[in-house]
Amino acid sequence: MTLLNKLLHNYDITLDKAGVSGTRLAQRLDSLSKIGPTPEGGSFRLGLSLEEKQAKELVKTWMKEAGLEVTEDGAGNVFGKLEGKNSSLPSIWTGSHVDSVPNGGHFDGPLGVLAALEVIEAWKETGFQPNRNVEVVIFTDEEGSRFYSGLMGSRAVTGEIEYNVQFERVDSEGTTFSQALEAYGSNREQFKKAKRNMEEVELFVEVHIEQGKQLEKANMPVGIVTGIAGPYVMEVHFSGVAGHAGNTPMNDRTDALVTASEFICKVETLPAQISSTAVATVGKLFVKPNGVNVIPGQVELFVDIRDIDEENRDKLVDLVHQAAYEIATNRGVEAKVVEHLRIPPVPIRQELQEKLKSVLENYGIEPTYIPSGAGHDAMILGNKVPVAMIFARSKDGISHNPKEWTTLNDCVYSVHVLKDFIEEISD
Amino acid sequence: MTLLNKLLHNYDITLDKAGVSGTRLAQRLDSLSKIGPTPEGGSFRLGLSLEEKQAKELVKTWMKEAGLEVTEDGAGNVFGKLEGKNSSLPSIWTGSHVDSVPNGGHFDGPLGVLAALEVIEAWKETGFQPNRNVEVVIFTDEEGSRFYSGLMGSRAVTGEIEYNVQFERVDSEGTTFSQALEAYGSNREQFKKAKRNMEEVELFVEVHIEQGKQLEKANMPVGIVTGIAGPYVMEVHFSGVAGHAGNTPMNDRTDALVTASEFICKVETLPAQISSTAVATVGKLFVKPNGVNVIPGQVELFVDIRDIDEENRDKLVDLVHQAAYEIATNRGVEAKVVEHLRIPPVPIRQELQEKLKSVLENYGIEPTYIPSGAGHDAMILGNKVPVAMIFARSKDGISHNPKEWTTLNDCVYSVHVLKDFIEEISD
Repeated sequence: MTLLNKLLHNYDITLDKAGVSGTRLAQRLDSLSKIGPTPEGGSFRLGLSLEEKQAKELVKTWMKEAGLEVTEDGAGNVFGKLEGKNSSLPSIWTGSHVDSVPNGGHFDGPLGVLAALEVIEAWKETGFQPNRNVEVVIFTDEEGSRFYSGLMGSRAVTGEIEYNVQFERVDSEGTTFSQALEAYGSNREQFKKAKRNMEEVELFVEVHIEQGKQLEKANMPVGIVTGIAGPYVMEVHFSGVAGHAGNTPMNDRTDALVTASEFICKVETLPAQISSTAVATVGKLFVKPNGVNVIPGQVELFVDIRDIDEENRDKLVDLVHQAAYEIATNRGVEAKVVEHLRIPPVPIRQELQEKLKSVLENYGIEPTYIPSGAGHDAMILGNKVPVAMIFARSKDGISHNPKEWTTLNDCVYSVHVLKDFIEEISD
Repeated sequence: MTLLNKLLHNYDITLDKAGVSGTRLAQRLDSLSKIGPTPEGGSFRLGLSLEEKQAKELVKTWMKEAGLEVTEDGAGNVFGKLEGKNSSLPSIWTGSHVDSVPNGGHFDGPLGVLAALEVIEAWKETGFQPNRNVEVVIFTDEEGSRFYSGLMGSRAVTGEIEYNVQFERVDSEGTTFSQALEAYGSNREQFKKAKRNMEEVELFVEVHIEQGKQLEKANMPVGIVTGIAGPYVMEVHFSGVAGHAGNTPMNDRTDALVTASEFICKVETLPAQISSTAVATVGKLFVKPNGVNVIPGQVELFVDIRDIDEENRDKLVDLVHQAAYEIATNRGVEAKVVEHLRIPPVPIRQELQEKLKSVLENYGIEPTYIPSGAGHDAMILGNKVPVAMIFARSKDGISHNPKEWTTLNDCVYSVHVLKDFIEEISD
């Protein structure tokens, strides 16, 4: 079954109202899914790839057909502008991205772009003109899978980027970011010019799939994002003493893996001491020398720590840091902690959450408040301008996977909520 | 400084007595170290390699010079026979191996062969003839680094080998064991003929470096091995649910790595419940997908479990097995346990340990009793005939490493102890 047929199956046609068309949205999701298809039924559209470019070109065609004024900056970000009644006011931006992880799904990114475009289409059908300019945005390379640096397009727009570091990044085939930019039709100078005066922007609002299970549990199509957890990544290196697994008595060992294991068990218990939204994960770990009959001398692991409140997040970071040193010291193991990433969380203003709540209630949707653990372009924009985010329900919480799935009903609910929200904000 | 100079530095020349020459032993250790040298100062002589063959050829020359009758079997094992006064009695075998792990040291293996040869040299100088035949043995491919199967030569001799499995083993370059045998100058038929009637053997005694720190702690040059722990290797596979590290609340996780960590901490505590010689080690572990921001869905790890008493070893195996399932079940994780290796431990007869003790005491050496956690050719022979082992002190317990070190004094002590022990046994 094609993605289109799967989407249209069980679609509640009564959701087609106020100019919104579920069928059009489904067709466009389907069309994008055919760019960079994978054998497993997923998408493969890396940032700055030909596939990402083709996807943007297709959306640009639709933007133009919808009457938007289309521009593209030196970072490959696409803007489709709808003139508002009062075009001198700061604009509302809305959108997401069309790049994917390798063998990713069809909703993470595309839904945010196409939901925004569907709002424009709906207004076109009903003859509505917003008070402020509304710009549909496609940010380049949100996933960062090719150059190991995500949120590239939104960083270029806000200027929150270390240009020289970015230009020298190298992909797995040895191509530098600068070379990829040139192959894409841009260059370093044009890339730097992508930086915008963010005072021209009133607010950025992004629709995105939840990539979690909260809405599924609440049995609601869409929900309200309360904040975007700023990721913090710490590398912890435990150095013990390698030895022969047979010849070293149990009481004469300095085992880096047992130490790391005690630490991992401790890390699991710490977020609850801080808040209900805090999380800490050891996802990546290497043992050295990693031989069946060798006591591990070294363990290198990464702890990903998040919360939507910066103070709480940093408190948790301190607890994890302390646990690493304490547990290691007790075992005569050396611990070294290196900070890899510390991005401030972006809280979402109470008043914007309130507005979304009242929009949801118009559709009989009970508000579910969800912290976003994942980073999004809204996180980068949120350092400069107010942001809001609307989550659409994800089946089983699965994403970055061909099995990623959001029903068309839920997609269309997100369009209605986005549309009503922008109409209200734009006034 | 060459190995020879390092060895001779601080050598106690008064140890040169009863025909034993420390200088000769040092020269021979030095000569072997030059075959397959590595940039780090180690040795690289894989089983069945040209380097291992060259090392054997050199030792064969010395054997012949010492008056031994030299033969080689179809597995590449070398035997240098000294006729005893009563040559119809079962023989005493003594020796070890000359192959190494990649970038290994200069004592693990060579010391056992050269100590045995030095006993013969000593007898030649003093005109001593043992009562029984004494055969100096070089077993092929003890380390098993090339075909991932150790103790090959001794297995071929005892016939404890699955021939078809062995013949089809493939090295990292795609060469089968059969092909390697042919390149070595043998073939499958000859290999099978390496099996010996073990009733012709009275006892096998092996000198080996300790590869542990017990003798260093006791400040003694040599010690008595009480048994060879039979290794047991279990693979444990924990299957949880991968998920986004940011979007999955702490109370909604099925994290395979936290489960594995709890298990690893538990495993550390179990050997003490069984015996003072039991050990259990998780040395090798893989996390999947092993991404910084992904909750680990799978962990695959290996537990190496040893004791010198089979019943105790198997009790410990059961406890570890049970812990894997219990901890996994409590966390909603699936555990799968696969047995990879179960070799029976080889206890060393009390009367042989007593004989070694009285020999040691003649040199003023207090007996240190050490279980051998590592496998040795003596472990394979031990399934068929009585075995004894003498450990020589290892600096810092380091082995399988260019830094492996045993002083010449300690090497020569091992020769004296081996010589006196054989003289006593041979009667």
